[in-house]
Amino acid sequence: MPTLFTGPVRPGPDWSRAISTTSPHPYTLTDAAAALRAGTVTSTGLLEAAIAAADRGDPVYGAYLRRFDEAARESAARADAELAAGQDRGPLHGIPVGVKDVFAAAGGPTTAQSRVLDRAWWAGRDATVVTRLVAAGAVLTGKTTTMEFGCGLPEERDPFPLPRNPWRPDHWAGGSSSGTGIGVATGMFLAGLGSDTAGSIRMPAAFCGVSGLMPTYGRVPGTGCVPLAYSVDRIGPLARSARDCAAVLGVLAGPDPVDPECASAPFHCPDFDGDLTGLRIGVVREGHFPDGRDPALDGAFSAALTVLSGLGAAVREVVLPYRAELTTAVVAVITSEALAHHRGGLSRRWHEYGRGFRGEVANGAFVSGADYVQAQRVRRIAQAAVDRIFGEVDVIVCPTASGGAPHVDELAGPDGVPDSGVLFRLLTTPYWNGVANPVLAVPMGFTADGLPLSLQLAGRPYAEAELVRVGEAYQRVTGWHLRTPPVVAEVAA
Amino acid sequence: MPTLFTGPVRPGPDWSRAISTTSPHPYTLTDAAAALRAGTVTSTGLLEAAIAAADRGDPVYGAYLRRFDEAARESAARADAELAAGQDRGPLHGIPVGVKDVFAAAGGPTTAQSRVLDRAWWAGRDATVVTRLVAAGAVLTGKTTTMEFGCGLPEERDPFPLPRNPWRPDHWAGGSSSGTGIGVATGMFLAGLGSDTAGSIRMPAAFCGVSGLMPTYGRVPGTGCVPLAYSVDRIGPLARSARDCAAVLGVLAGPDPVDPECASAPFHCPDFDGDLTGLRIGVVREGHFPDGRDPALDGAFSAALTVLSGLGAAVREVVLPYRAELTTAVVAVITSEALAHHRGGLSRRWHEYGRGFRGEVANGAFVSGADYVQAQRVRRIAQAAVDRIFGEVDVIVCPTASGGAPHVDELAGPDGVPDSGVLFRLLTTPYWNGVANPVLAVPMGFTADGLPLSLQLAGRPYAEAELVRVGEAYQRVTGWHLRTPPVVAEVAA
Repeated sequence: MPTLFTGPVRPGPDWSRAISTTSPHPYTLTDAAAALRAGTVTSTGLLEAAIAAADRGDPVYGAYLRRFDEAARESAARADAELAAGQDRGPLHGIPVGVKDVFAAAGGPTTAQSRVLDRAWWAGRDATVVTRLVAAGAVLTGKTTTMEFGCGLPEERDPFPLPRNPWRPDHWAGGSSSGTGIGVATGMFLAGLGSDTAGSIRMPAAFCGVSGLMPTYGRVPGTGCVPLAYSVDRIGPLARSARDCAAVLGVLAGPDPVDPECASAPFHCPDFDGDLTGLRIGVVREGHFPDGRDPALDGAFSAALTVLSGLGAAVREVVLPYRAELTTAVVAVITSEALAHHRGGLSRRWHEYGRGFRGEVANGAFVSGADYVQAQRVRRIAQAAVDRIFGEVDVIVCPTASGGAPHVDELAGPDGVPDSGVLFRLLTTPYWNGVANPVLAVPMGFTADGLPLSLQLAGRPYAEAELVRVGEAYQRVTGWHLRTPPVVAEVAA
Repeated sequence: MPTLFTGPVRPGPDWSRAISTTSPHPYTLTDAAAALRAGTVTSTGLLEAAIAAADRGDPVYGAYLRRFDEAARESAARADAELAAGQDRGPLHGIPVGVKDVFAAAGGPTTAQSRVLDRAWWAGRDATVVTRLVAAGAVLTGKTTTMEFGCGLPEERDPFPLPRNPWRPDHWAGGSSSGTGIGVATGMFLAGLGSDTAGSIRMPAAFCGVSGLMPTYGRVPGTGCVPLAYSVDRIGPLARSARDCAAVLGVLAGPDPVDPECASAPFHCPDFDGDLTGLRIGVVREGHFPDGRDPALDGAFSAALTVLSGLGAAVREVVLPYRAELTTAVVAVITSEALAHHRGGLSRRWHEYGRGFRGEVANGAFVSGADYVQAQRVRRIAQAAVDRIFGEVDVIVCPTASGGAPHVDELAGPDGVPDSGVLFRLLTTPYWNGVANPVLAVPMGFTADGLPLSLQLAGRPYAEAELVRVGEAYQRVTGWHLRTPPVVAEVAA
């Protein structure tokens, strides 16, 4: 597989060998699925390698809140028996998968990384998406770290660890689907579930150097997922490749009679041919990153555009409409909806919530009903304007973040109090939560410090197939998504 | 046509003869449409009778804000020529129709009965529903009175009249589609457009003794209609009979690319056979009218149930879920959405708004974003609960109001300041604005004072055809909808 661009980071030892039980070890979910069917690996073998990776890496990175080792071993053995008997449940059958701890799973209580959430919430039951993963034969390895209720800010508060970056543990992993990003990057599982209300799939995907797909609003059911903001929340996969994300989305998508927001639109995985002839790409160059950007970003982004052009796409510049208005609107909506959900809890158990969550959601008290109505109106107007741009182009691209993951010491604001404004100025993600469009984040190179950079590709509502087709074509020739954190190998060594 | 029950009011002279140009004069839109095609009446004849009725009645009742006499005469002449040439646009072709002054019409400026609305708003253009009426050959007679922005409270403020009840001019006509109700009752037109955010179609239909249909939320496009509360507002017809309402809805319904809330569900007018065998009716008996009810109400309601049973329906009692919560929620939503729309105007032009509107919408300032979110959540939960009831019954019935229209002196609160709470305690209508279901109001008898009583029939979302089928069967045997205000005949005499 050719690599057009090589980042300044040393490739490092191949961690895949460290978790290999047979040779050659599959690198991606797609490769693993093929190897399972070729008989060159077993689900049990994949799982034991994943468990070994977690044993080594989790004390450093803080990916897991709870591991399901024994139940996973039973699932893997069952998958092996089924596959041996010719009973094939599809691409996730026998694949180790991690689940962000906002999704209910029968294997243990859900915490949403909070001291507040009642441990009896959905106890003993699976969220709809977990039910679908299990039915598809996936092997659940455990529940992964997040930020409190998928919001707040990264904080180390007993018993919850601070998720650290697999490429540099003194940097943050990104969030709120932190543990899922870490786990995919370090081989603790081959794919995982995240949720995204302002960037929570795409940010950890970007900072951990993996792929993350935020599907169209309403594509995936939220039943049994701890909500943050019901008109904004989305559920989707993180995995090594765009193609892997498509395999997981195929299992997650589809109507749910319990979730009124969930659409019935079917997801059909595209043919991956690596050819982007005829594709029209809109590039967003202006308006990002008021606090500046990493010196490596512009070169990496230009290189990505060169690759996409070289694959046959026509690239032209576009300007995102209502950028400031939409970002303000989506924050007003998120804080109002989160406050509506947590108002009772916040008034009774203020000190049990983390500082980050309290501070974020308290802002909702300053949003009036009329403000909220106008914010939702801004979202509709912006959606119409974005729809018009998608009459001219098929995909819109921009960097996901201004550079690599911030150092953990940079997360707090100037007065030491965590401040989401710091994060928002590093990211282009919240804009896309204001509208319904799906967005794929894929690795795009590295900073001079060896931290991953990321490219965001946004598509028309329900056009995830187009996004993963473009992402796969890009990954086929760049290979950034196959780079693995050198520190993993060092820990493994 | 048999009449099972006769109210205590004297039938009075037949106003239809007063507006007749040929004999027998058609009574309903449906009859008029048949007579036009039989050649026993002309559109011009219908219109001149309607104009004569307006000349006589409007100074007393205050139905019109603006009349389109000359343009209407041209439309009627055109309709006559087209019908004579065999060019038939359907049941509204050549029919005089009045339009509430919240809908834009090319014939003149829209006021929404406010001193504030910019007279250039949609000037020279037709609202989508008006375009559809015109395309169907309807003859627009003019713009009818409302309450300010379809909200507020009835007030006489120059240049806007206080709409008075056609049955007793010292009583109110109901609102906010006041003039449309008056005009249908008094023969100023055969059908008209209203809008309903808390009862604004059903209340004037009830108090004026005509039929009114609030369609399913999203059934009729709102483009070119002055909004009050976008997630609640609905547009629908007032006319003499349920069957007439169906004829108008058939023209109004259908997708509109400009209105994202408008659904594409087609409306198919049912066959009217008068047979309700197999129909399951749920009756709501409890929870209405904390301030008491008119002595005639219970008898009229029982009689209506007897009629429906006699037509073959199975009647059982049901309890409306979340009655208090839903009514509170819909008020919070309406005031928030109205304030979002008017905040700028209210801060700059406070004194130009009427007291009623100012007072109502100012309440929105006390609704927080989180309150609004919870209110919308209550609406979803209540919708699910109502949907469950509609698994057991096909139609839910209850009285529309506690009695006849209030005296105009009763409209102000104890301190003389208009208070919508007074109205809300007289009505069962706002509950149904909280959910999406369609509701038909039909005349049900009279108070001892000769004021109309009304029956509300609620159906499943998009089941307007079922409602009008039931309403027509009821009207076929009761004939309440054919009673005409005695005062009209007196004015005419």
